[in-house]
Amino acid sequence: MDTYRQENMSKNVDQETRTPNWSAGAGYIDGKFMPIAEAKIPVTDWAYRRSDVVYDVVSVWDGVFFRLDDHIARFRRSMNRYKFNIKETDEEIRTILHKLMALSGLRNAYVAMDCLRGQAAPGVRSPVKARNYLSCHAVPFSTLVPQDKIERGIHMMVSSIPRIPHACVDATAKNFHWGDLNLSMFEADEKGADYPVLLDLEGNVTEGPGFNVFTVTNGVVATPDYNMLEGVSRASAMDICAELNIPFEVRKVSVAELRDADEIFVSSTAGGVIGVSRIDGRILNNDRPGPISEKIRETYWQKRLAGWHGEPVNYELE
Amino acid sequence: MDTYRQENMSKNVDQETRTPNWSAGAGYIDGKFMPIAEAKIPVTDWAYRRSDVVYDVVSVWDGVFFRLDDHIARFRRSMNRYKFNIKETDEEIRTILHKLMALSGLRNAYVAMDCLRGQAAPGVRSPVKARNYLSCHAVPFSTLVPQDKIERGIHMMVSSIPRIPHACVDATAKNFHWGDLNLSMFEADEKGADYPVLLDLEGNVTEGPGFNVFTVTNGVVATPDYNMLEGVSRASAMDICAELNIPFEVRKVSVAELRDADEIFVSSTAGGVIGVSRIDGRILNNDRPGPISEKIRETYWQKRLAGWHGEPVNYELE
Ligand SMILES: Cc1ncc(COP(=O)(O)O)c(C=O)c1O
Ligand SMILES: Cc1ncc(COP(=O)(O)O)c(C=O)c1O
Repeated sequence: MDTYRQENMSKNVDQETRTPNWSAGAGYIDGKFMPIAEAKIPVTDWAYRRSDVVYDVVSVWDGVFFRLDDHIARFRRSMNRYKFNIKETDEEIRTILHKLMALSGLRNAYVAMDCLRGQAAPGVRSPVKARNYLSCHAVPFSTLVPQDKIERGIHMMVSSIPRIPHACVDATAKNFHWGDLNLSMFEADEKGADYPVLLDLEGNVTEGPGFNVFTVTNGVVATPDYNMLEGVSRASAMDICAELNIPFEVRKVSVAELRDADEIFVSSTAGGVIGVSRIDGRILNNDRPGPISEKIRETYWQKRLAGWHGEPVNYELE
Repeated sequence: MDTYRQENMSKNVDQETRTPNWSAGAGYIDGKFMPIAEAKIPVTDWAYRRSDVVYDVVSVWDGVFFRLDDHIARFRRSMNRYKFNIKETDEEIRTILHKLMALSGLRNAYVAMDCLRGQAAPGVRSPVKARNYLSCHAVPFSTLVPQDKIERGIHMMVSSIPRIPHACVDATAKNFHWGDLNLSMFEADEKGADYPVLLDLEGNVTEGPGFNVFTVTNGVVATPDYNMLEGVSRASAMDICAELNIPFEVRKVSVAELRDADEIFVSSTAGGVIGVSRIDGRILNNDRPGPISEKIRETYWQKRLAGWHGEPVNYELE
């Protein structure tokens, strides 16, 4: 394992000049830009110590941001919901994200914007007194599963751990409260599955670690309406269903409906739309993603490559 | 606000020599010691990005650790519960904490030990594949509220936000899932209270941001048995009740019982035992901590100063 760390570090540092490697990614913290290896936050920051932070992530594919406006708008809503206040305007955030892309030179990237609580003066414990700040970074794009698993479909399992209820932590404000998701990933691993899906306390489908979930039953697509992040990719999947005249329902989806579905797919900034081929060991559609899921996935990428909701990166930005 | 940051930074750096100030605190991250101002973690670490981390905090008063064994034992249980694995043994953790105290020279300190998930190789998303590591730090001691408020008693309010259920995130494994607690602190601030107390989804008392909660009714002390951290200070309060022949019950405590209690007090590493003088604006015992609460608080500090469960810091440690 130490080997991995060394390899990873050497990737982030040019071995000739010992200077940090911008192409591994770029960071911005509270006014300053830096190579990703130097983008760090204090161990005493409440963003870490109390997970008092909201964030968002937008993807860049082939030099083009996807639905950047939607991600910045959701980020602002998350900040307002949890009472954060930063000096940067939405336009300034947009410029910072472009600049991170220009600095890294990446063509395909995962671009994060975080709003951190910070800390108050020593001895003061109320978040009301803290100075909040912005941290953003761009790193190489990655998908929920590698390409071969996108083709064969995700193997999914229903977690035994319920998702944190919306009443306790508002899932529509994108946050790092992943304790339930984290432990579910160990459970998935033990069962030989790629990913877990989590239910709410009443046994309805919510979401998984990094994605929204959809069922297809008798040609109708359904996705939960509650206790999950309102994914930007989920909105894209809905738009595509409307365009393709595929009936679409946003409502409670019970675990029974999930287990009996003809098809299942997920949506995420980390890959767009990806089909599922197994649920709790049950094989769906010949052990491959189903035809409606595939149609939506293909349309998603066709539209993106054609510039749908695209904003080209300004790589010339100084 | 920027002024505070500058002041804070200048406290951490000696203005003559421009060298970091160890007396502001000391950190240890994955094998290395450093002044607290340099103790930082990557923005890409899952300990931050997924709150995939467990921790513990022990106090030092007048150069003496309190119940260090209990804190390290609970830390190890938290690590096991969330499937963390670090190279340091319990004995090595103990030595690191002593060394942090020796480096900082602090006499009264708040000493944290965190176990971070780390990250896996680029593109790999499962926590199963990550290399976990230890981060510890010591900073000056602080209490839940300043001394004048300890004397007049905490003003408490019942939060409208329920605590994350145990089934979703195990509260007995000390963690940073504070979204519910964080927002409740804004609610408390709006209502002019010092601290919130959170209920579970059924309306029973759980805990507050950094403390356990106790009621005293007709001379009997009661504290919740479920959906909260099993505080080390809570164990101390129980021990003291036994010693003083105060009847003590660990069981469900309804919000009605809390609101009608003769006395309320809290327990925390950040201050030991502290009395409450108001709950949702209702005045308890003449607007001061109650007599049983005060007796337990005084006994706590008498016993600590007499060396109870104490382990003197080895300030000579190289
Ligand atoms: C918990 C959770 N649900 C759903 C999603 C999908 O949202 P989006 O399509 O906006 O990426 C994410 C994305 O990271 C997520 O973390
Ligand atoms: C949520 C929560 N509950 C209770 C406590 C009190 O535990 P202890 O007495 O071990 O400090 C803490 C301490 O930080 C806490 O964070």
